[in-house]
Amino acid sequence: MSDETAVLDTARRARVAATDLAVASRATKDAALHAMADALLAAAPQILEANAADCARAEAGGTPPAIIDRLRLDDGRIAGMAQGLRDVAGLPDPVGEVVRGSTLPNGLELRQVRVPFGVVGIIYEARPNVTADGAGLALKSGNAVLLRGSSSAKASNTAIVAALRDGIVSAALPADAVQLVPGDTHDAVKHLMRARGLVDVLIPRGGASLIKSVVEESTVPVIETGVGNCHVYVDADADLDVAERILVNAKAQRPSVCNAAETVLVHADVAEAFVPRAVAALGQVGVTVHGDAEFARLAGAEVVPATAEDWDTEYLSLDIAAAVVPSLEDAITHIREHGSGHTEAIVTRSQGAARRFVAAVDAAAVVVNASTRFTDGGEFGFGAEIGISTQKLHARGPMGLPELTSTKYVVTGDGHIRG
Amino acid sequence: MSDETAVLDTARRARVAATDLAVASRATKDAALHAMADALLAAAPQILEANAADCARAEAGGTPPAIIDRLRLDDGRIAGMAQGLRDVAGLPDPVGEVVRGSTLPNGLELRQVRVPFGVVGIIYEARPNVTADGAGLALKSGNAVLLRGSSSAKASNTAIVAALRDGIVSAALPADAVQLVPGDTHDAVKHLMRARGLVDVLIPRGGASLIKSVVEESTVPVIETGVGNCHVYVDADADLDVAERILVNAKAQRPSVCNAAETVLVHADVAEAFVPRAVAALGQVGVTVHGDAEFARLAGAEVVPATAEDWDTEYLSLDIAAAVVPSLEDAITHIREHGSGHTEAIVTRSQGAARRFVAAVDAAAVVVNASTRFTDGGEFGFGAEIGISTQKLHARGPMGLPELTSTKYVVTGDGHIRG
Repeated sequence: MSDETAVLDTARRARVAATDLAVASRATKDAALHAMADALLAAAPQILEANAADCARAEAGGTPPAIIDRLRLDDGRIAGMAQGLRDVAGLPDPVGEVVRGSTLPNGLELRQVRVPFGVVGIIYEARPNVTADGAGLALKSGNAVLLRGSSSAKASNTAIVAALRDGIVSAALPADAVQLVPGDTHDAVKHLMRARGLVDVLIPRGGASLIKSVVEESTVPVIETGVGNCHVYVDADADLDVAERILVNAKAQRPSVCNAAETVLVHADVAEAFVPRAVAALGQVGVTVHGDAEFARLAGAEVVPATAEDWDTEYLSLDIAAAVVPSLEDAITHIREHGSGHTEAIVTRSQGAARRFVAAVDAAAVVVNASTRFTDGGEFGFGAEIGISTQKLHARGPMGLPELTSTKYVVTGDGHIRG
Repeated sequence: MSDETAVLDTARRARVAATDLAVASRATKDAALHAMADALLAAAPQILEANAADCARAEAGGTPPAIIDRLRLDDGRIAGMAQGLRDVAGLPDPVGEVVRGSTLPNGLELRQVRVPFGVVGIIYEARPNVTADGAGLALKSGNAVLLRGSSSAKASNTAIVAALRDGIVSAALPADAVQLVPGDTHDAVKHLMRARGLVDVLIPRGGASLIKSVVEESTVPVIETGVGNCHVYVDADADLDVAERILVNAKAQRPSVCNAAETVLVHADVAEAFVPRAVAALGQVGVTVHGDAEFARLAGAEVVPATAEDWDTEYLSLDIAAAVVPSLEDAITHIREHGSGHTEAIVTRSQGAARRFVAAVDAAAVVVNASTRFTDGGEFGFGAEIGISTQKLHARGPMGLPELTSTKYVVTGDGHIRG
């Protein structure tokens, strides 16, 4: 069987499963989620064996230790995946929610109701826990899911999916609710991306190049996620103690994630007071500052001269670009030119500056006097997160269960015709 | 200047205009809409002159009279466009609406607020009134718009846009809020479709082939609109008087539109009673029936034998495909295989049948005991409509002003950092 046939067959089986999932009750879906958790724990030995093989292959291939750490599973991580599924069971079911409703002047009843997408594809890198998380969120929202992890995690993902399918079947839902995309080549992913009509939405989760290739090649609608070139702007009216605390937290609390800050912009009026202490505070937690000329002049310590590239770089490391800006408007312009539309923060005591920044900055999240690190489904109280959308269509910002649904209009009359 | 440079320059100017539009007050936008209406009326002589040239060119080129009728403007149609703009001014402003909000356990205030997309592209065919409608809806929702009409309407669209821009400027908003996409070739459209990052969303309005090409070629996110292969299913428990009335209305009240019915499915239990009267009633309004063997056997009059193609055809004419189905489930399966996800109707007195049909049929609108023709922004009370989405991402069904917006999260703290 060719890759194309295999991928399309898988997608067709997902569509069939999706018709059952769409009408499954919350009770059935929650029972399946608990059964999936139980099955994961029961299959832990097989999953760990498969994972050990993946890790050994990666080590032999010279994969860096940081990547292997993300790949490696242990009993704790499997227990975490299982608990994640149980947590999703505890969340409200988005399907069936009436988003709006009215009775029209002619007596027709109109309701807009949440329904599953149908078939969701998730293309992701390294971490095998996404396999269980993605399956759980898709199933709870009534969607069948096609999972395409990285080839380095293939054995682990295969073992995890086998366990999840056992759980699903034991709850009398179709096993094909959760499937891995077959095929070893990049062609398999291409066929997935061209399966418009069979697959309703693709969610790529991973680095910028993965997301870019999916966005460019897919005819299936894509929700773009995750790339974050986030700014902290320290306004002329900032409380500098607050600014320092937020800057250090936004940059250094977990530098490898998309909501970490990558650039700090300092208003010229407070630059003399703020820049030296910012450089010192960042230096203390190991951050390298890439400053523009004015920032470097005020730093009172060595900073790396910033190049044009720095303003557009998502470091995901203990590095930060830094510039002095003459005004709030210049900060807004800088963010408009270089931001990735993820999270942008202002530190200010001025109500006017905060209002202007919030209105003029176009991003999934605009933050006033808090760390960029709060842009997260868990922090926002959504209970779960499938990713953080940086596009404007359908979902923007952290995506929880409702973002994995569409809607349908239900129109009820008693013989109404249009005049 | 190459087509590509010209298109990208236009898009860049739209982005600049969009930053002003995003923060414009409702009062300013409504004043602009009224000024646009005034300017259209004032420019009626120039618009009609340009339109006469378009129509003459189309006639000389052998364009069918029905198409020329859609192209042709007169004082009444221009007045209609102007009134449309005033009507949009009367609608609520979607921008700034708080979609949800809460205070998180740590005291952070979270609000999800409607914001404009930024730059919206509309690619459409023939009717020049879409030029004014699209411009009005985009401006009210705070978006700059790039309009690409058909080449046959180029002179008309150029004259309309010139008038609209005069109106916009007189209300102190940027003229580049409304622009035509430059360039005469299909390449210009291609550059628009590849302008990801400059254009936020593309909405194609027109025939199936236009929509298909935009969906396949665009890297800019697309909202698919309009193709409707709508079914009327007459259940075993249908009131046959109601069924006949709905069927005739759904098929024949305005056969050229996407929410007209294209197939009727009749439950076998009522086929003997319903098929002959359906054929007679449809025949009386000039409809040709393309029936399957069982339908033809029961018709009591000549029907055209249906081919496999008929089940997938959007006739947009006084034709209808017709089949007898053994059960409700078979009707659902038929619709699943052949429907386009637009509007599907059931006629039944059975609460159980209605509930099952509504739950199992996956379409933008599912209608119980009413005509498919009600799927329409005006009928739904949205006050305006930019199109009817048949995709599941972002918007599904009639799209009004809120569907032309995205959201942003606004997070407000007082020095919050993440632990």
